[in-house]
Amino acid sequence: MQRWNSWGEAGHDYPLPEHALHYLADLIGPGYPLEEVLLETVSTKVAESRLANHSLVNKDPEVRVCYARGHSFADWLAKKSGQIEMVPDGVAFPESRDDILQLLEWAEQMDCNLIPYGGGTSVVGHINPQAGARPTLTVSMSRLSQLLALDKESLLATFGAGTTGPQVEAQLQAHGFTLGHFPQSFEYSTLGGWVATRSSGQQSLGYGRIETLFAGGRLETFQGSYYLRPFPAESAGPDLKECVLGSEGRLGILSEVIVNISRLPRFEAFYGLFFPDWQAGIAACQQALQQRIPLSMLRLSAPEETETFLRLSDKQNAIRWLEKLLVMRGAKAGRCQLLVGVSGEKAQCHHAWKQLRRISRFYGGVNTGQLIGQQWQRHRYRNPYLRETLWQAGYGVDTVETATQWLHIDSLRQAMEQALRSALHDDAEQVHVFTHISHCYAQGASLYTTFVFRLGETYDITLARWQKLKAAVMQAIVTHGGTVSHHHGVGVDHRTFLPSTKDEQQLKAISALCQHFDPNARLCAHNLLPPNFDILLTTTGPTASDDLSHVLKDTTDVVA
Amino acid sequence: MQRWNSWGEAGHDYPLPEHALHYLADLIGPGYPLEEVLLETVSTKVAESRLANHSLVNKDPEVRVCYARGHSFADWLAKKSGQIEMVPDGVAFPESRDDILQLLEWAEQMDCNLIPYGGGTSVVGHINPQAGARPTLTVSMSRLSQLLALDKESLLATFGAGTTGPQVEAQLQAHGFTLGHFPQSFEYSTLGGWVATRSSGQQSLGYGRIETLFAGGRLETFQGSYYLRPFPAESAGPDLKECVLGSEGRLGILSEVIVNISRLPRFEAFYGLFFPDWQAGIAACQQALQQRIPLSMLRLSAPEETETFLRLSDKQNAIRWLEKLLVMRGAKAGRCQLLVGVSGEKAQCHHAWKQLRRISRFYGGVNTGQLIGQQWQRHRYRNPYLRETLWQAGYGVDTVETATQWLHIDSLRQAMEQALRSALHDDAEQVHVFTHISHCYAQGASLYTTFVFRLGETYDITLARWQKLKAAVMQAIVTHGGTVSHHHGVGVDHRTFLPSTKDEQQLKAISALCQHFDPNARLCAHNLLPPNFDILLTTTGPTASDDLSHVLKDTTDVVA
Repeated sequence: MQRWNSWGEAGHDYPLPEHALHYLADLIGPGYPLEEVLLETVSTKVAESRLANHSLVNKDPEVRVCYARGHSFADWLAKKSGQIEMVPDGVAFPESRDDILQLLEWAEQMDCNLIPYGGGTSVVGHINPQAGARPTLTVSMSRLSQLLALDKESLLATFGAGTTGPQVEAQLQAHGFTLGHFPQSFEYSTLGGWVATRSSGQQSLGYGRIETLFAGGRLETFQGSYYLRPFPAESAGPDLKECVLGSEGRLGILSEVIVNISRLPRFEAFYGLFFPDWQAGIAACQQALQQRIPLSMLRLSAPEETETFLRLSDKQNAIRWLEKLLVMRGAKAGRCQLLVGVSGEKAQCHHAWKQLRRISRFYGGVNTGQLIGQQWQRHRYRNPYLRETLWQAGYGVDTVETATQWLHIDSLRQAMEQALRSALHDDAEQVHVFTHISHCYAQGASLYTTFVFRLGETYDITLARWQKLKAAVMQAIVTHGGTVSHHHGVGVDHRTFLPSTKDEQQLKAISALCQHFDPNARLCAHNLLPPNFDILLTTTGPTASDDLSHVLKDTTDVVA
Repeated sequence: MQRWNSWGEAGHDYPLPEHALHYLADLIGPGYPLEEVLLETVSTKVAESRLANHSLVNKDPEVRVCYARGHSFADWLAKKSGQIEMVPDGVAFPESRDDILQLLEWAEQMDCNLIPYGGGTSVVGHINPQAGARPTLTVSMSRLSQLLALDKESLLATFGAGTTGPQVEAQLQAHGFTLGHFPQSFEYSTLGGWVATRSSGQQSLGYGRIETLFAGGRLETFQGSYYLRPFPAESAGPDLKECVLGSEGRLGILSEVIVNISRLPRFEAFYGLFFPDWQAGIAACQQALQQRIPLSMLRLSAPEETETFLRLSDKQNAIRWLEKLLVMRGAKAGRCQLLVGVSGEKAQCHHAWKQLRRISRFYGGVNTGQLIGQQWQRHRYRNPYLRETLWQAGYGVDTVETATQWLHIDSLRQAMEQALRSALHDDAEQVHVFTHISHCYAQGASLYTTFVFRLGETYDITLARWQKLKAAVMQAIVTHGGTVSHHHGVGVDHRTFLPSTKDEQQLKAISALCQHFDPNARLCAHNLLPPNFDILLTTTGPTASDDLSHVLKDTTDVVA
């Protein structure tokens, strides 16, 4: 049974060792947990549904509460405190494309809004019903989870859009294939959700982001059904797939997703390296990417994260041994851990790893073999569970992510970490902040920053702390050349920052597409565009986007 | 001086050896050339410009004729015969973004249409002015050809959109970088044109298609200037870059293009292999791609093309030697030539080539070393010049290209070739047809088919022959699972076939975008969408796309 107000199945806990909590208490002070409300209690307070009955729709209050919020920190606070402002008026469980088309029609009759719901794992408010005159119908895609077609020659597979990570892999691996998309939310998130939010998996360096994996599919819209054919490549006008990717439910409901798949790799390994400092680690990653070494993962922890991982590990004997090796080889304070993944044909993996080691040696890297990599692989989906462990100990934890060019990667990290560390100064609260690069590209990389802080004495105080932290770090991101999101999407939480990433003309173009497909704004109108943006829309006359120029300016070397 | 009615600079000719023309005459009969009209003669007949004077606009009749047509076979016939229905009313030569914005404003005042013009190398009618009440202003981008910014850390370069292939490479190579985009039109085509038509270079397997290389830039539209920031990756809503890619001039005029660049490869080589038959060659390519061997080119000629190349070569001594080797090693009739490129770090290239040889051996491939590859590299941009040589000998030559999944690649090639071979049966004319795979993907490949036929006794008869050939092969493409274009674009010539590739909902979405950015339809309204498609546009109510279902159906294995 999935926990209604936390991550994962009941009984799947990942306790932290005693010394880890001491380490945290030393850094930011002892934590005091907050009391939680029971599902039964919340459910009794839910307002009556404003929807009529429908054979596909469940209006049970408990079900409605369970589908009300995602997994942002604010969502957790809402669920744990029971202060859930809005729950959907019903949850539909379509079992076919026809069911979806029927629900779209019914939504017009009912004058209600619709929220497509995959795994409910959004961390930016995508699937949260909004207050308003119209009822909200959440559409769970959970019953559209089958492999529908498999083209083994062309490596194409068609799935129902509600297929979760484990369901995708189980159905493909039975035939000897893999999708290779492993985001941290893998256990619950779905194909449709990945596409709608432009998800990126841990091994995207090898398999590609969902943009690369998404080959086509069907989108059910108020204008009719829309089929994207899976050509390997084409020059037949604008690529509409790229408008469905990241559409965050605003254009229609994805019913079927066609993906590019791979044969199961014959070999796979994850290695751990340590660089003497951040600059050396960055340079090695940059060079590996720019030389196109065919790796499947690069994951570089900055010094604070490297130390935190070493200190929090439950294998302290092994760590002491590792510590000796690292100090002996010159990787002392300031060292950075790099995880390297290779997947595919054995000879190719060996050659790629050999080349990576060559670069690593040049930058003073210390190779510690596969132990750390194996440990990482075993626990690759564990972090969301640790949020609950920390919560029980009285700590809040959240993450924020962005991407930028290599030129800005260092200044952006510093700005983000500084913003978070100082955000609660007025409250005299310390924040433990650490960062890693989760995804590398030839042009730049993502930054994934974790921040741990103490829960307040009340839910309101805790929410205020989190809001200060989030606002401070988002401001740092957009003023230091980062995108509003690298792999979590825009949703409600990032939409006011979107104009720093996409200029006014692009927002207008997206708005025009939304208006075309969903003229009555029933589909997730809260996502993506800044509030009230649509009323800015004009169809004639030039407009200036100069007021954003300070944000948009790129500090590249100008050739004289 | 660039030839006005043919490819390339005057004096750059590529004569075919005598025996090659005999070979052709044996296959399809002797050719009889048609008489050509002089530029001076055509220019005197040009109607007066309907545009007012403007400091940026040249209204000289000779200039207007030179900018009137591209390089489709029909364009050549128009220029060689002098029967050019429409020439632009003027040609503008902007030198800055401001100039472009000024021209957009002036176009509204003049009530004229605009055609952005890069290298004029379109083969599907993109840059041809259309008859109508409005004057047409062609906007040559030739003076926007500078490297504007270079970020050596992040491998990003910003260019004026009118920069041609040689200008791009010269400016980048001076700093040790390359774009790696080498379409056959390289010598004249431009960055802006590549982006607007979704171009693909000969080494796209290594460097990526223009979609991969296009990182951002500026589009000047009637709604204002639109800036696409070059983030390495992001999940910040729909990717509007992918709507500019393939927009074929309909949304605005690209002024600046930011591209992902690479360091100049330290090693590069092209090898020639021969497979006993087409199936073996296909299987080897498919496996190389699906195993992600990091090659920079794979180019597989079907048997007819392989034989044609061997017979047409001007190195018949070497060919005789090669012939002996091939026969001895079992590659006889039906053999297929594969060109393999590797580019990058030496060790990586050697390893990739080693892996490719392993696959090749498995499928009976014969490695003939680098001679054929070097020959190909030396003449990589020669084919457009051969069109003139054949023209002078009384033959017409054209090419058609598409892409499809591996599952359909064989049936599609057969259908295309059969359609072309039989298209002129009623005229009792033979057509020499041969095909290669120019670009490979894990999911499928492109097909590039060349057809040679005899010119008719008049221009009208010749045009009719070409039209029959083109119609027959396009019909074969869309009914056998091919996309309307893999790298030439849609333009005028393919737009009626577009509904087989993109369904009604997608065409409507593109139409909505065009209407948003260009409400008065001044920008290349002839390109991309089927004629009169815009009037089909409705904004409410579901519509069926079922009438296209026979075309859209994919014949993949359905999982029970």
